[in-house]
Amino acid sequence: MSVNSLYPSAELSSIGLSWRASGQATLRGPLLRLAQSCDRAFVRLSGLWKAEEEHHPASMPAQALQRADYLRSFPHQAAFAARLGPEDANLRAFLDGPVLDPDGSVRLTGLSPVSEVLTPAACYHVYDDRQGQELAGPQYVTTRNTCFRHEREYVPLRRLSSFRMREVVCLGRAEDTAAFLRSAVTAVDAFCERVGVGLEWRAATDPFFRPRDNPRYLLQRVDPVKSEATYGGDLAIASVNRHHDHFGESFGLTLDGAPAHSACLAFGIERWLFALVDRHGTDPAAWPDVERAAAEVLAALAGGPA
Amino acid sequence: MSVNSLYPSAELSSIGLSWRASGQATLRGPLLRLAQSCDRAFVRLSGLWKAEEEHHPASMPAQALQRADYLRSFPHQAAFAARLGPEDANLRAFLDGPVLDPDGSVRLTGLSPVSEVLTPAACYHVYDDRQGQELAGPQYVTTRNTCFRHEREYVPLRRLSSFRMREVVCLGRAEDTAAFLRSAVTAVDAFCERVGVGLEWRAATDPFFRPRDNPRYLLQRVDPVKSEATYGGDLAIASVNRHHDHFGESFGLTLDGAPAHSACLAFGIERWLFALVDRHGTDPAAWPDVERAAAEVLAALAGGPA
Repeated sequence: MSVNSLYPSAELSSIGLSWRASGQATLRGPLLRLAQSCDRAFVRLSGLWKAEEEHHPASMPAQALQRADYLRSFPHQAAFAARLGPEDANLRAFLDGPVLDPDGSVRLTGLSPVSEVLTPAACYHVYDDRQGQELAGPQYVTTRNTCFRHEREYVPLRRLSSFRMREVVCLGRAEDTAAFLRSAVTAVDAFCERVGVGLEWRAATDPFFRPRDNPRYLLQRVDPVKSEATYGGDLAIASVNRHHDHFGESFGLTLDGAPAHSACLAFGIERWLFALVDRHGTDPAAWPDVERAAAEVLAALAGGPA
Repeated sequence: MSVNSLYPSAELSSIGLSWRASGQATLRGPLLRLAQSCDRAFVRLSGLWKAEEEHHPASMPAQALQRADYLRSFPHQAAFAARLGPEDANLRAFLDGPVLDPDGSVRLTGLSPVSEVLTPAACYHVYDDRQGQELAGPQYVTTRNTCFRHEREYVPLRRLSSFRMREVVCLGRAEDTAAFLRSAVTAVDAFCERVGVGLEWRAATDPFFRPRDNPRYLLQRVDPVKSEATYGGDLAIASVNRHHDHFGESFGLTLDGAPAHSACLAFGIERWLFALVDRHGTDPAAWPDVERAAAEVLAALAGGPA
């Protein structure tokens, strides 16, 4: 079946998707079980590096995120947690109003100072949580988070305003991150072959605001640091990212007295659902056993570069 | 050990808690594994009602939530997803400013209309997702979500600004919800006995804003609809809630041509971590096998009221 056969998403709803035009997905039944299996499969793959799992909140202080200059690079994508000012008069003023405007937007009164950003990518928490630490050696971490991004348009299972991302992060020396990324690409290729999802690796850049004004974008152009595993020609279902010592510098993470290097492997869980269903159809009986595939990859590569 | 022995949270950090004063917890190691086991245990318990699992986004349209009059009842607790207006001039103005104020709050420029509320409780999505449906019979659903609440103060594992809630929801006739709540209390009691966590059930009310002005609060006072399983005298680790046909009316859910009734059983996952560690100590070897306990409860009660 082709990508287009999934639009409108009637076929997807028959296997458990409820979709909102505002970019949110509810999953149940076959699609939910597939999403859970995919995440367990990715956690298994992280065993290649004996990654330790951690769970982070769904928001982080803007001040922490700003250490990596996130808000200057991606102001158009950031989502903030905003709350009404707690003063009784302010809340009464809110209640005295219509609360909602006819278009469904909230008729806000005064907001409390906004200091939290909704998690834009799972791995930021990993660096922030280790802020100022001196690492004894390379560290491998896996974490999943609900991520929020403001986009111009949303597409079922392809582009969501809130979605789940599973990442594997390597913190270490330049050579540790290089070896990690090599083995990550090998693992993703082996996994995709086993689950019958063809993909193509493409050099990519992060979606900076006004990229040409951003030195980090220009750097990424001359020295590609992001490579996306794309399905169907245009859907990035995984990516590998080399951060050099950008996060080590930003969060004061050191190793051998120098800023630590970092790299990550990221999986967009809903996008994997899209790719697997697009490739194998809407009959769950025809879906591959993604967890077994991950276990096989682990067995095949565990002696490898990791 | 006593509740107080967990403060300051040095003992908790030794088993995997990183805590932020702004009310967020990072979990790793023993505490993360315990959280995962607790959630699997609660899902097992939901097997008592053969509940179907579903996964919902971490936010919902304010318009949907307002069907249940949430914003008028809990304006002080609501958290909204806010984004900068996408106009180039607005984003440039943001970037021309300091981005952050010295206190760490974001120097916002114009916001896009705010129409999403961050999930305040897992079960709202269940009603909204079925909006306007005529049920063929009782339905039992379990779902977990990241919930956001604005509080005056935050306490490690006891009161968080974002936390995870696992719920089991019953939609049906008044007698279905009554039977569900009876069996829910029996199941929680049996589970707590097996995991060695003593609790006390207490009638409670929802934390309405200016409760005495709110007819729903007054109703809850004369006809208690919420009962909390409290640990250590003051920590609600679970609750059972009878909504009568409030959500059925609000979301147009009908059964036998009348508004459906609903009820829910809710578990606050981080609070269970607190109770289990407070009760059994910080040595994971001394922790109960919560998943086995749930399986035993299921075996013991499966023939029962559910």
